[in-house]
Amino acid sequence: MTLVCPLDYRYGTEEMKALLNEESRLQSQLRVEIALARAHNKIGTIPDQELKKIEKAFEEKRVKLERVKEIEKEIKHDVMAIVKALSEQCGSAGKYIHLGATSYDIVDTATAYQLKEVFSLLKKRIIKLRDTLFKRALEHKGTIMLGRTHGQFATPITFGLKLTVFAMEMQRHLERLEEIKKRVCVGKMSGAVGTGAAFGPHFFEIQNLVMEDLGLGVEEAATQIVQRDRLTEFVAFLANLASSLEKFATEVRNLQRSEIMEVAEAFDVEKQVGSSTMAHKKNPILSENICGLARVARAWLLPTFENVPTWHERDLTNSSAERFILPHAVILVDDILVKMEEVFKNLKVFPENMKRNLERAKGLNMAESVLMLLAKKGMGRQESHELLRRLSMEALEKGCHLKEVLLGNEKVTHYLSLEEIQEALKLENYVGHAEEIVEQCMKKVYGENL
Amino acid sequence: MTLVCPLDYRYGTEEMKALLNEESRLQSQLRVEIALARAHNKIGTIPDQELKKIEKAFEEKRVKLERVKEIEKEIKHDVMAIVKALSEQCGSAGKYIHLGATSYDIVDTATAYQLKEVFSLLKKRIIKLRDTLFKRALEHKGTIMLGRTHGQFATPITFGLKLTVFAMEMQRHLERLEEIKKRVCVGKMSGAVGTGAAFGPHFFEIQNLVMEDLGLGVEEAATQIVQRDRLTEFVAFLANLASSLEKFATEVRNLQRSEIMEVAEAFDVEKQVGSSTMAHKKNPILSENICGLARVARAWLLPTFENVPTWHERDLTNSSAERFILPHAVILVDDILVKMEEVFKNLKVFPENMKRNLERAKGLNMAESVLMLLAKKGMGRQESHELLRRLSMEALEKGCHLKEVLLGNEKVTHYLSLEEIQEALKLENYVGHAEEIVEQCMKKVYGENL
Amino acid sequence: MTLVCPLDYRYGTEEMKALLNEESRLQSQLRVEIALARAHNKIGTIPDQELKKIEKAFEEKRVKLERVKEIEKEIKHDVMAIVKALSEQCGSAGKYIHLGATSYDIVDTATAYQLKEVFSLLKKRIIKLRDTLFKRALEHKGTIMLGRTHGQFATPITFGLKLTVFAMEMQRHLERLEEIKKRVCVGKMSGAVGTGAAFGPHFFEIQNLVMEDLGLGVEEAATQIVQRDRLTEFVAFLANLASSLEKFATEVRNLQRSEIMEVAEAFDVEKQVGSSTMAHKKNPILSENICGLARVARAWLLPTFENVPTWHERDLTNSSAERFILPHAVILVDDILVKMEEVFKNLKVFPENMKRNLERAKGLNMAESVLMLLAKKGMGRQESHELLRRLSMEALEKGCHLKEVLLGNEKVTHYLSLEEIQEALKLENYVGHAEEIVEQCMKKVYGENL
Amino acid sequence: MTLVCPLDYRYGTEEMKALLNEESRLQSQLRVEIALARAHNKIGTIPDQELKKIEKAFEEKRVKLERVKEIEKEIKHDVMAIVKALSEQCGSAGKYIHLGATSYDIVDTATAYQLKEVFSLLKKRIIKLRDTLFKRALEHKGTIMLGRTHGQFATPITFGLKLTVFAMEMQRHLERLEEIKKRVCVGKMSGAVGTGAAFGPHFFEIQNLVMEDLGLGVEEAATQIVQRDRLTEFVAFLANLASSLEKFATEVRNLQRSEIMEVAEAFDVEKQVGSSTMAHKKNPILSENICGLARVARAWLLPTFENVPTWHERDLTNSSAERFILPHAVILVDDILVKMEEVFKNLKVFPENMKRNLERAKGLNMAESVLMLLAKKGMGRQESHELLRRLSMEALEKGCHLKEVLLGNEKVTHYLSLEEIQEALKLENYVGHAEEIVEQCMKKVYGENL
Repeated sequence: MTLVCPLDYRYGTEEMKALLNEESRLQSQLRVEIALARAHNKIGTIPDQELKKIEKAFEEKRVKLERVKEIEKEIKHDVMAIVKALSEQCGSAGKYIHLGATSYDIVDTATAYQLKEVFSLLKKRIIKLRDTLFKRALEHKGTIMLGRTHGQFATPITFGLKLTVFAMEMQRHLERLEEIKKRVCVGKMSGAVGTGAAFGPHFFEIQNLVMEDLGLGVEEAATQIVQRDRLTEFVAFLANLASSLEKFATEVRNLQRSEIMEVAEAFDVEKQVGSSTMAHKKNPILSENICGLARVARAWLLPTFENVPTWHERDLTNSSAERFILPHAVILVDDILVKMEEVFKNLKVFPENMKRNLERAKGLNMAESVLMLLAKKGMGRQESHELLRRLSMEALEKGCHLKEVLLGNEKVTHYLSLEEIQEALKLENYVGHAEEIVEQCMKKVYGENL
Repeated sequence: MTLVCPLDYRYGTEEMKALLNEESRLQSQLRVEIALARAHNKIGTIPDQELKKIEKAFEEKRVKLERVKEIEKEIKHDVMAIVKALSEQCGSAGKYIHLGATSYDIVDTATAYQLKEVFSLLKKRIIKLRDTLFKRALEHKGTIMLGRTHGQFATPITFGLKLTVFAMEMQRHLERLEEIKKRVCVGKMSGAVGTGAAFGPHFFEIQNLVMEDLGLGVEEAATQIVQRDRLTEFVAFLANLASSLEKFATEVRNLQRSEIMEVAEAFDVEKQVGSSTMAHKKNPILSENICGLARVARAWLLPTFENVPTWHERDLTNSSAERFILPHAVILVDDILVKMEEVFKNLKVFPENMKRNLERAKGLNMAESVLMLLAKKGMGRQESHELLRRLSMEALEKGCHLKEVLLGNEKVTHYLSLEEIQEALKLENYVGHAEEIVEQCMKKVYGENL
Repeated sequence: MTLVCPLDYRYGTEEMKALLNEESRLQSQLRVEIALARAHNKIGTIPDQELKKIEKAFEEKRVKLERVKEIEKEIKHDVMAIVKALSEQCGSAGKYIHLGATSYDIVDTATAYQLKEVFSLLKKRIIKLRDTLFKRALEHKGTIMLGRTHGQFATPITFGLKLTVFAMEMQRHLERLEEIKKRVCVGKMSGAVGTGAAFGPHFFEIQNLVMEDLGLGVEEAATQIVQRDRLTEFVAFLANLASSLEKFATEVRNLQRSEIMEVAEAFDVEKQVGSSTMAHKKNPILSENICGLARVARAWLLPTFENVPTWHERDLTNSSAERFILPHAVILVDDILVKMEEVFKNLKVFPENMKRNLERAKGLNMAESVLMLLAKKGMGRQESHELLRRLSMEALEKGCHLKEVLLGNEKVTHYLSLEEIQEALKLENYVGHAEEIVEQCMKKVYGENL
Repeated sequence: MTLVCPLDYRYGTEEMKALLNEESRLQSQLRVEIALARAHNKIGTIPDQELKKIEKAFEEKRVKLERVKEIEKEIKHDVMAIVKALSEQCGSAGKYIHLGATSYDIVDTATAYQLKEVFSLLKKRIIKLRDTLFKRALEHKGTIMLGRTHGQFATPITFGLKLTVFAMEMQRHLERLEEIKKRVCVGKMSGAVGTGAAFGPHFFEIQNLVMEDLGLGVEEAATQIVQRDRLTEFVAFLANLASSLEKFATEVRNLQRSEIMEVAEAFDVEKQVGSSTMAHKKNPILSENICGLARVARAWLLPTFENVPTWHERDLTNSSAERFILPHAVILVDDILVKMEEVFKNLKVFPENMKRNLERAKGLNMAESVLMLLAKKGMGRQESHELLRRLSMEALEKGCHLKEVLLGNEKVTHYLSLEEIQEALKLENYVGHAEEIVEQCMKKVYGENL
């Protein structure tokens, strides 16, 4: 069998794929039917004996995907096919299955049930990446490097600060994940148009029992389906997370440029081939891969948002689209979370190159430091800014160090001594509170007992 | 002056536009400069005297938009132009402005400051729409109408339930708005690369003072900018909200179809023109307008997500894009929130047409009710489903009422009496718990003292 | 093996999947290597003997996907893995493979080679759908039905005209397909940075020979890759085509509404299950399916456009994304083209219901016809429009036929006789040139000898 | 008046805005009414006298925007407002205006009429940018620089080749513009549902006369509107063009990085402020601006594609959205076309820095050249690739020039002499056919008489 989707032959962790493949889908839907049967049993509709038969058929995994597909092919209705396939395995109890339910009671509740597991795994991944980022940040708390804005040299930072910015972004995604879970992991058992009519007087009880059994929240006012603003919130979250990862990966790609080479992805020198014709290349392939897949992960925004405006108590247009959306969006984001963690865990950092690059800046990135000092010494802010602007241009023109130009300018030397100028140009004096920011953020996340 | 953007000549409430126009933008940025000057004053960098001069220039609105633009045209830097324009108005105090700050300390903090007001107004709008929906739901708690799935007649609902589904969706958006506010309304005062170096030893104090003064949270680990996952979360929220509104408006459009005509937007019979050639038309123009604008509101997802991956401590690509994103996305969503509330507040509801349409269904939409009864009486679920399916087809073919076919079928009459059949086909017996759902949801939102 | 992508277990025609699966990908890349070897042979770099060995290995399909994956796992480079796997099968000729080429010479040229086949199949599909639409249009050239705008009754059309609008849209897509093919089916053989350096003096000759052999155009100025505006144009075309199909399918869904029921998708009365609880339902499931999948097909716009801005002579970010984009976008569009054709081929049309619905309009949709006549008889256009507007409102209010109101109005009867009014309200007098439009369009597409 | 949309206060050329502002919109719609009146005159419906009155009112611009808005406010119908406002100015001829037309006959035809001008201006812009790119390419035909892939040093190219790749991309966009024009600049005059009924027997003649007068094509089979696949094709074209520009601008930004500094945007050393705190900065602000605005330009894909599936003979949802789409998408793309041309026209190129960077590569980027030579001298391709890969890693490790490592390796020296190695490492020997590609492409575009 030869496949067309890279999720099926190339990308994605086995762990996450196991939560979202066809088999898992079938099992989740069956699990909801079981929960429904149990609820009916509790209110007295299904005798204990018969419930046990149904539960046993489920536990022994007697319903096979192939059989379900066979039935679906005939009757052209996927959920009824599952119901029939389960019935076949339950003997006399078959008639008690799916009682009062409409297909989407099963479909949407099963999705929520799957997402519960997905949320757990995503949480684990996000925490792991955050922790790795903080670990490397701690390691490089004091490693000085160029800040860069507009692609131009700016005042120095530490590599630890850079990683802390990323770590805190992951912390925010963790917060978001926790907050949206209560709205996303929600099922319904209220029938064809949401009135619960087919469940008779015990409707509320049945619906609550089912959701309790499955550990899910309840859609209090449903149509035939759980409303799609919920799923949309989740997919938007995934897209946001993917975009953060694209940002981190882009940073690695930029810092690994030949001209910069301040960090590098781990590389298997023995065997790995960088290029089919340029044998020397060590490319940031994982980071490039993350960027590409992040864009695919974001693409699911489109059909998800377009599916919100369903007609009346529902139309079916979301159905086919959602078969794609959830597996693709979730598996891809999970995949790049794992890869990103791997990149940072094994990232080679070259402090000596960071230093070399700082020196290449020839003091120009320290102009602000001198500017601040001049302002402090009494020159107006605007005036000192204008002065430094001109002197920087001069240094750039001449290709010389800013210090030279500063010492040659009378206005500057009127306010500042040689020592003061030298001090102002020292990088280590101008990374501000980079280290404390790292510490404070870690304290905030991990508490005192770090 | 003739304009190109419909926000400037056609759409949007004055209230929201006043929060996001050029002038408001200027005032917010000046407000942040004031907060910064106050912080410097507190730590002793700026004398009281001088602070007062700066504050007065701001309070008297002496900085004019035209002057700022004039300066910007010359120096080609928007924030420095504001700083210069403010300086000009402060005499000797001019040199104390913008001390230690980088442009984006002002830009991003000013945005957060504007968004605080935007959040308040959006909250008001969402609550108003939710309340109107509940009010009409209460009014039509018992108004029976057809449920429809796949565009086909389904079992009955009440119009109150339909509106409650919408109201609860607005309630969820309210929850979201509250939750994301803490992450979105966040500023920074940490300089060019986020280290706070230019603020000297008092950096943390200054940053905290500024944000307290403005009522904002702090970006604990910044680069030159507040990280864009925050803004992205907000724009995704707006897009989700817009999609809900598109759903509601689509429902109105569908229910107002000539063939259905169960509701209608209010219409000025005296003057309003529906069509330039078809003089009789009463079109759901507000709802159609909402659908169109919702799509425009969603479009901002694209540049917003693409702007997340900035380079290093930042690049400038987000800047031009964000000048569009926030005003457009916010003003459009606000606009359609207001219009949607107007639609529902004035919506004409035609219960007699709802009844007429129910009758057109000729009992077919009650098949489930009969099915449930048969199952209850001992016929297996699968069997009764299959039976009803065939009998429904038969009724459809013959164009007769389902009742007729049921009475003519021996299997059915074996299980059910004439009275039972009639009872099962009664609409009012089959709206399930529609009324209780309305009540429960309102209780959940408003508490006991409704 | 249990799968996650619906393309691999549920959707897509076998015909199109065979053009885009892993195996086809491998064979296309090998085919490009063969073309390159042949070119080298022509300019004398590879002896005839050796070329034959390489060709034979290809023709006998001796390179196996499993072996390629095995090698890739080790060296982490997909194209070099193919080169090695082919080399292994060529004995002494192995060293002549891939001479002068860079990976993307193979990758991009192989994609273009695959797309050539894809274009052919898509062309066939589009033509088939267009022809079916025209066939049904001809059949219903004179079948009168309501026009509807804003969901409201409008002046009458014919069903043939409606289908002709769709058919002409397919005709335009056919034109587009032809026009873009020359820009999309283009390869390169110019090495790592597009200079052709590694091919020595024969570069232009080699590149031309390869493309001739494969039936492709040449990227005249390449970097490492064929520029992505080309692929983007194709994916935008697919999205446009998908949107047209969503429009057609939405029309079917709307016309199949219970209240309208003017057409219906074919339905297997014997076996097909419409709903798990509402046994009577005949849902437009194919059309709903098409709408959902069309949205997924459109989603690929996002990563495709984002991949255009590659860095320098290229980065790798497009690579992972494109593994998804092409198979998904193409297979989905092909799938819904086939389904749409099936829907229209088998569509049940109910002219009697069309007639019934026309009668329900009670003449209101003919207001324009009367208006035109009044204007012709001398009443000003604005005045007659205003008059008809008011009379239509009156008829609507009273629930009576427009004719009644017209006859009761003095201004109207001043200008028009009873016969004239009756004539103006006759539907068949007011479908204008609907039939001629069908004929003219068919003539334009098929020529005189229709 | 303070504005909210940056198009109205900051971005966009006056030339393009004049084609798309409110006033131009009004004039275009009036122009279509004139064309319609002329057609009616030709078939005899409107007397010469009366036509002249209408034409005069238009030529003398007597219809004022304010008046139209006043009327619209009252009757809530934009096109009828224009008709009334024009009528008011035409005395007795007023009743001849808009005869037989529906609003969208005017709206869509007026849009096509505006787009005709838009196409002309865009064509001019694209040609200008293409020509500037070729001019600079010619100038730097032989300027050697590093090729870069994955952000890593690759084999050398010339700056002329790089620019030629861009120029040819613009050439393709020019081709596209020409091809799609015939499908986009198309109007209709076929009434409320496309049958032409209201125009009576002369429908085809009238429609053709109108379009001839306006220089537009005809929508052969319309509903109430011109079908939206046409507009969609145009907006997708604009998005593709914007993406190309983002690519070019990204290249400038990358080449202007402090560490690379091979090109720089022109910068006003006297006055321009790069940063409010870092006085030395020369940022690629135009290119960053282009990237940001390109993303906004792409955003319009969303509502445009979503508007394709209109209901029945049309719904109104596209109307509000399109008021935004066209002005924003077109004005932004025009704006960045102009800026991009400015960037390249004034771009400072630093060949000495290109040279310096090449030297920094220490021969590693020439590994392929040696590899090719070894292969030519008889070492197998795979073997020589593996050898070069290891020697490159070694050189990288040691931080020395590739030459050193090559000379120290016996296998290499077995096949190659010192001279051969030196020759193989010469950059100018390894830019392949870069110059010829520039020449050939220019010849293709400009013909022989360049």
